[in-house]
Amino acid sequence: MNPFSDRPADTIAALGEQKLLARIRRWLGSAAPASPAGMGDDCAVLAAPRPARGHARSAPATLVTVDPVIYGEHFDNAVPPRAVGRKLLRRNLSDIAAMGGRPTAAVLALALDPRIRLDWLEAFYRGLAADARAFGVPLVGGDLATHRGGLVATLTLLGETTAPGGRALTRSGARIGDWIAVTGRLGGSLASGRHHSFTPRLDEGRWLARRPEVVALMDLSDGLAKDVFSLTPPGARPLLFGEIVPRHRGVDLRAALGDGEDYELLVAFRATPAAAQKLLAAWRRAFPRLPLTVIGQFAPKDASPVSLGALDLSAHHGFEHFQ
Amino acid sequence: MNPFSDRPADTIAALGEQKLLARIRRWLGSAAPASPAGMGDDCAVLAAPRPARGHARSAPATLVTVDPVIYGEHFDNAVPPRAVGRKLLRRNLSDIAAMGGRPTAAVLALALDPRIRLDWLEAFYRGLAADARAFGVPLVGGDLATHRGGLVATLTLLGETTAPGGRALTRSGARIGDWIAVTGRLGGSLASGRHHSFTPRLDEGRWLARRPEVVALMDLSDGLAKDVFSLTPPGARPLLFGEIVPRHRGVDLRAALGDGEDYELLVAFRATPAAAQKLLAAWRRAFPRLPLTVIGQFAPKDASPVSLGALDLSAHHGFEHFQ
Repeated sequence: MNPFSDRPADTIAALGEQKLLARIRRWLGSAAPASPAGMGDDCAVLAAPRPARGHARSAPATLVTVDPVIYGEHFDNAVPPRAVGRKLLRRNLSDIAAMGGRPTAAVLALALDPRIRLDWLEAFYRGLAADARAFGVPLVGGDLATHRGGLVATLTLLGETTAPGGRALTRSGARIGDWIAVTGRLGGSLASGRHHSFTPRLDEGRWLARRPEVVALMDLSDGLAKDVFSLTPPGARPLLFGEIVPRHRGVDLRAALGDGEDYELLVAFRATPAAAQKLLAAWRRAFPRLPLTVIGQFAPKDASPVSLGALDLSAHHGFEHFQ
Repeated sequence: MNPFSDRPADTIAALGEQKLLARIRRWLGSAAPASPAGMGDDCAVLAAPRPARGHARSAPATLVTVDPVIYGEHFDNAVPPRAVGRKLLRRNLSDIAAMGGRPTAAVLALALDPRIRLDWLEAFYRGLAADARAFGVPLVGGDLATHRGGLVATLTLLGETTAPGGRALTRSGARIGDWIAVTGRLGGSLASGRHHSFTPRLDEGRWLARRPEVVALMDLSDGLAKDVFSLTPPGARPLLFGEIVPRHRGVDLRAALGDGEDYELLVAFRATPAAAQKLLAAWRRAFPRLPLTVIGQFAPKDASPVSLGALDLSAHHGFEHFQ
């Protein structure tokens, strides 16, 4: 069978990303365990072996994530090859950060056209290696394969949880009433080059995983307006106060909500207003140069956004794949 | 920088696979640890955490490997999509087998043109899921990305060692005088369809890892004539007796040595002739339907192949990437 079709109705583009993901779950059935041990979160969480009898302290859980960079999609001729190597590692580090973990090892699969320039590839590897050293991630394995007409670099990153009890922060811990917060500032990632020079929030993710108030965490890759629904519990809607969303200079609200590739952390936490103030004060002491901003709250689905003065997210969109 | 060049001298094709791998090691430097903790073997071997005080039995080591299947390279329109999914998992399982390990979890990264047919993708996933269940490997994570014009599926497989002491069989244990053996039969993999329907030698690899005589192991993917040099120790040459190399029906010696994609195990073991007979007898009891054939021995580099009646491998070639 030819995998490609010129009849749009037969293709994955006709289905769209969300429906395609639902189909894939159905096709995989019992071969794919449910999150957090399986698909659907920033990383898969593989439980540590049970501790030996008499040893109370449980071992860290293993984290696994995979993300590619693809020529023509995630970078083009304007992005220096060193930055492509860095972006590849940092995208994956951001997923480890989003579970509150630390990275342990990476493997790289490269699919390369034989016409790839040697000096391009050298700069790509040197950029990747410099970051691998800076973040303390050994590159332990890889594969090189021929791919006529294409250039796809796929990195799989292993990590481990760092919080007591092997706690990993998934996307599914939030409840109605929890606060929504975001690290740093949003928007304009592509135009500014931040999409390949951002700093993965590893220290911040580990700090959040040790705070009992924090109940869910993810990194922002497709834009806040789309990604916030991944943290939203069933029966709830996110109420975001638009004027509070922290934006990079020169970025309007629409861009801050929809641009994507921010790689900031989106946090759900559960606290009284007084306890929330304490959490934010502790954050400022730990990370004086990176804001953590409360931008909203999870409300019952039937709460009217207008009456509360909140943003109508249905007017905003994040990045849609396969369009 | 444009990653592609039309001047052949500037490209990776001009360098060839072996020289390219040597360059990559140089570019990565200290970011890539040496084998077996790093690149260069069938899997990377990540040491288990040190056992708690008073616990003598060491935990299994973690194994990691990654291999893709790429449209136009590893499969074409003639290969059913179910078989593509199976091939992807089995290629990686074969790498786990080649360390004497067992698989524990897989993650899949798909780079897909939006024009990919939905029914092609469904059959691919169903083939992958059927094999994942059959081999007991949960698919714990994945990524979907847009890749206009291409179809690349990259699977990363985690595993663990099964032999006492966390022993993994690497490619580097052989010495001059060790025997060379191979499982099953070789050649004709592409023409017969075995390249996507082969059985990864997991049980056999685990059995071999428990035999102290076995000192090195790998799986055959690029053809015996090329791959045997990955098991050959420095200062040695492999003496292979051509008439003994086990071949599939209708396959000549040239094809058995050079076709590639056999996914059989190549074994180095150290034994007196009497002990070798014992090992082979034990194998026949364990695996009565799969031959283990002694096909040669590692000899000093200056040993003349002609005087010993052995094969001149310089006249044979395996699969070369980026040509």
